[in-house]
Amino acid sequence: MSLPANAFCSIARTLEVLGQKWNLLLLREAFYGRTRYGEFQRIGIPSDTLAARLDSLVAAGLLERRSYQPDGKRTRDEYVLTAAGKDAITVLAALSEWGDRHLPLPDGPGIVFEVGDTGEPVHLRFLTEGGREVAADEVTAVHGPGWFAAKARLAADN
Amino acid sequence: MSLPANAFCSIARTLEVLGQKWNLLLLREAFYGRTRYGEFQRIGIPSDTLAARLDSLVAAGLLERRSYQPDGKRTRDEYVLTAAGKDAITVLAALSEWGDRHLPLPDGPGIVFEVGDTGEPVHLRFLTEGGREVAADEVTAVHGPGWFAAKARLAADN
Repeated sequence: MSLPANAFCSIARTLEVLGQKWNLLLLREAFYGRTRYGEFQRIGIPSDTLAARLDSLVAAGLLERRSYQPDGKRTRDEYVLTAAGKDAITVLAALSEWGDRHLPLPDGPGIVFEVGDTGEPVHLRFLTEGGREVAADEVTAVHGPGWFAAKARLAADN
Repeated sequence: MSLPANAFCSIARTLEVLGQKWNLLLLREAFYGRTRYGEFQRIGIPSDTLAARLDSLVAAGLLERRSYQPDGKRTRDEYVLTAAGKDAITVLAALSEWGDRHLPLPDGPGIVFEVGDTGEPVHLRFLTEGGREVAADEVTAVHGPGWFAAKARLAADN
């Protein structure tokens, strides 16, 4: 019996949350510091979809829903990045850098990544555990321990 | 007039190609060395969808369609990663590493990234142009030159 191709893959599991165009664009807006429903609407997402997408990001633990009360108005919700949400900046940077290389804009990148404190530009790179930089075209993807463990269990069950 | 939120964003442009769960899982299979229709089917994608997704990856320049002829059989198509397709390994690694941190499997990662020649494990990290490693939680996303140029053009037109 062959192993289900997706059950033990961290890419497939991540895509359940992040493999959704609107979710990633909403995270982008959250990184720009937007927290409010009306601010998220500006990306052109239909209102029903926006509510559902924000709920899915809250359920997945990437955004936290908080209440705020504008002066003299009723209480409203705002949406703030959690630590797990902030950690998705590597996914946004990988998508953005790929786009800048293969679908470039005439005037340069529309979004850049930098050190918050100093403004130094940063780029994603592959590093070995010893800190040596490795070009992307030297890197391969292979099955990891989670896959082999699952395969061994499946063999034992049959 | 405000600037359209997505027109000048390399994340949004990249998501037109890579913001699609099946496309990323098909690329994962291509990195595992799979090239044939029947091999791609094992990820559980419906047959109609598979044909459309392979076409979209060819149209976007991530896969190249080639012909091969099995012994005594008719000619068939196979799908091989292009340089742009191979370069999407950073996107797969970013998704995978996020999943390993936030949706971990009990037995460890299902997929790992390593140097093709030596098998050394590699990880994605943010580096400054001087080669200094910066933790993801110190990195921020800001508008880049493409965004400011577009904004200036829009202001001049109004």
